[in-house]
Parts: sequence; structure tokens; C-alpha cells
Amino acid sequence: MIRVSIIGSGNVAQHLIQAFSKTTEIELVQVYSRKPNVMATIATSAKIISDFTALLPVDLIIIAVTDSAISEVSKQIPFQNQLIAHTSGSMAMEVLDDKNRKGVFYPLQTFSKAKEVDFSGIPIFVEAQNDTDYQVLEIVAKSVSNSVNRIHSKQRKALHIAAVFVSNFTNHLYQIGYDICQENELPFDALKPLILETANKITTLTPTEAQTGPARRKDTQTINEHLAFLTDENQKEIYKLLTKSIIDNGKKL
Amino acid sequence: MIRVSIIGSGNVAQHLIQAFSKTTEIELVQVYSRKPNVMATIATSAKIISDFTALLPVDLIIIAVTDSAISEVSKQIPFQNQLIAHTSGSMAMEVLDDKNRKGVFYPLQTFSKAKEVDFSGIPIFVEAQNDTDYQVLEIVAKSVSNSVNRIHSKQRKALHIAAVFVSNFTNHLYQIGYDICQENELPFDALKPLILETANKITTLTPTEAQTGPARRKDTQTINEHLAFLTDENQKEIYKLLTKSIIDNGKKL
Repeated sequence: MIRVSIIGSGNVAQHLIQAFSKTTEIELVQVYSRKPNVMATIATSAKIISDFTALLPVDLIIIAVTDSAISEVSKQIPFQNQLIAHTSGSMAMEVLDDKNRKGVFYPLQTFSKAKEVDFSGIPIFVEAQNDTDYQVLEIVAKSVSNSVNRIHSKQRKALHIAAVFVSNFTNHLYQIGYDICQENELPFDALKPLILETANKITTLTPTEAQTGPARRKDTQTINEHLAFLTDENQKEIYKLLTKSIIDNGKKL
Repeated sequence: MIRVSIIGSGNVAQHLIQAFSKTTEIELVQVYSRKPNVMATIATSAKIISDFTALLPVDLIIIAVTDSAISEVSKQIPFQNQLIAHTSGSMAMEVLDDKNRKGVFYPLQTFSKAKEVDFSGIPIFVEAQNDTDYQVLEIVAKSVSNSVNRIHSKQRKALHIAAVFVSNFTNHLYQIGYDICQENELPFDALKPLILETANKITTLTPTEAQTGPARRKDTQTINEHLAFLTDENQKEIYKLLTKSIIDNGKKL
């Protein structure tokens, strides 16, 4: 059994706790939370603490807190030369305090409190300072995920940026679709099969093969009619920029 | 049995032919294609023709051709007072020639030749000039889909624009994710679980509830690091505009 503690009580921390509690390879020793009552229903087997001085030495401490707090939290850990990993897509491994061994344990997924996810399908990207530490992180990652990859920091940053495009920005396009439906008394439900199929297509086609629509067809009449219909300046700007980008991309092929 | 003929050989025509061939309520009488050999494997039960004068009167002719050709094709139909519908999301019903009765039969989905779809989950939006014609279109639509809705032309245009945002533009964001992976020697496969989960979330959460990421958190440090990392000016512009739009949207809540 590998002994793991988690610092944090946000979406990533909560989903990790749930995933670890289902494995037999991991003993979840402690969960640190500033709001211990929030965690009471989630971390039933681990001891919930709200004081860094109560942290015990374990094989791995995972810091799953907001990016800007990682460095400060790592300073609070009351011992040295232990393996400490953060879960951020964008922060360098080096932001962790020098007194402990450093690692990154980055699950590439979008977590919402309200929705449980199947961790086994979530790719986890791991960084470490040496092979021994990498192996610990790999065992922990493999205990919950079928896809574990070792990458370097620059690749992780690229991956996080790609994730912002395909997930955060995509969800914002869903928001615009939702707003347009609301304004025109249409059920957003009508768009859901299209949203799901657009995502599913990507499992069998490349994005280039899957691209359809007025911009792909260079159908300037439809594009101009759509721009004339839109009254929200922000929606218009996004429509123009993404249409131009699709047309330019088509020229490269 | 309702007798239906289809004019067209593109993605929508091919998927409609396949869907109708599985129903017992529809007799597919003829398929018009300028390239009859393309259709030989798809339209096995219907007679394939490539001459408009060979068209027979039926209960419904569906024109599933590119938007700009709909009007001209409708003029070529060699009889009067028959029910003719097009499948376009963006063209007015009125572009159909006046000599026949007009309708719209708009399946809201993204069709690619290489990928079969389950028509039963695809919403079909129907317009007609009178209730009798609407009922014919409704029976035909219900024979292949569980979701049939009567809407007016302005709503259909809004729906098509919303579809461009949530499907065509979303797929282009997948393209950018793909390009960033390629440039950084990362497998695009790593993004697929995230893409699928981002879409699946929308079945249980509103887009506002599902929104995550640096822009949602107003994490300007990460946003600036991402912009510094991106070298492609087009990717930078899209990143900036969508980030601004997410932040502005957050202010409205």
C-alpha cells in the first residue's frame, strides 16, 4: 500500500479522494481542508485535518489547491525530503518549496462538483525529479487511471493550453448556443444531440475531416446572413474570428 | 405508406436515404443524383435517376442539395402543386419555386460521409404552408426521429446559427487543440476524454454551471502565461477573445 495524503477541498481534490477510496493500492491517510465540514461526507476513511502541523509523513502528498496557492501551501508542510506533487496543468514543478522532493500529478479532465467522473478513462500526466519518485507517482496514477504518461513541463503547459481550447472555450460556445436558444424561445435540448455527435466524431475522424458548416464551404451568403441576424456584438466578433480561422485553415490543406 | 423522393447526393441526402430505408412507413420512390454511380450502393431500393423530367409525382420530394442550388433545383421539378421541402438550416422556405407547395425538413445534426449516425436521436424541425402539409412532413419526420418540432423561419435561422457555434466552431477549437498537440509532440488522443466529458457535462449541467478554467477563475497570471506561450497569432487572437467573453459573461451572473 502506498500512503497518500491530499491537501485541498476543491473539485480536483474531491474527485481524487473518491477515486483513491475505490482502489486497494492506495491508503488515503489524511485530507487537509480549511473547511473540514465540507469534506466530511467525501473523505470518510481518511482523517480530515485543518492544521498543517498535524500532517504526517507519507509516501506522497498531493497538493490539489488553486494555482496561486500551491507555492505557499508547499512551504507550510512541516517536514523535509518527502515527495510532494501538485495537480496543476499550468504551474511549473519548481514552484513547490525546495525543502521537499517535487512532482506533478496532472489529471487532464474537467471536474465539476455536481458530476461524478470515471477516473479510469482520465489521462494523468506525471513529472518527477528522479526515476524513483516517478515510479511512486506512476503507481498512484495507474491505481486510478488506464492512461499514465511522463511528460516535461513545456509539454504540460502546451497540453493545458490545448485543454483550454477544447474544453473551457468549447463550453463557452455551448453557452452562446444556449443564449441564442433562450433569445429565440428554442429548447437548448435541441442542440444536445449535435453537441454530443460533434464530440463523438473526434473519436473516429480528425478535426479536419470532421469540419462542416458555412465557413468550411466558404458559403459567404450564409455567413453574411448569420452576421446580419446576430445583434450581440460579442457573438458577432466570435463568429467573424472563428469563421476567418476556419477559412484560413482550409487554405493550408 | 408515404411515397417520398430525394433530390441530392451529399451527406444529408445519403443519411436520409439510409434512415428511410429502415422504416416501414416510407416508400423511397426515386433518388435524383447528378452522379448516379455514387449513389448505387446507398439507394438500392429506390430508382436512381439523373434527369429531372423522369421525376414521378409522390407525396413529398425532399431537396437535400447545397443551399445555393435549392432555388434552381426546385424550378426543375416538372409538375405543380406537389409538396416539396428543402433540408437547409439557413434558407427561407420561400426560396422554393412557387409552382409547388413548400416545406422545410431540417435535421439538426452534423453529417459526415464517413460516419453513420442514429437518426432516431436527431431533432427534425419542420415548416409548412398549411396544416395538411405539416402533417405529411411530421409523419415522415417521426418515421425516422423521436424529436419533431414545428418552428418558424426566424427560429430556424437562430437554431442554425446556434448550431454553427456549438458544432462547427467547436470542431475548429478541436482543430486548434490538435495543432497544439502536434507542435509539442503530444498525442491528440490525450484530449479525447476531456472533449467527450465537456460535451457530456452539458446533458446534466447548464453551460454556466459547467464552465471551468483560467478565464472563469479570472486567473490573469495563467492567462498571460498561455498568451506568452502561443506563437500563432490566430490562436492568440481566439484565446484573447474567448477569454474576454467568458470573463464578461461571468460579470452578468
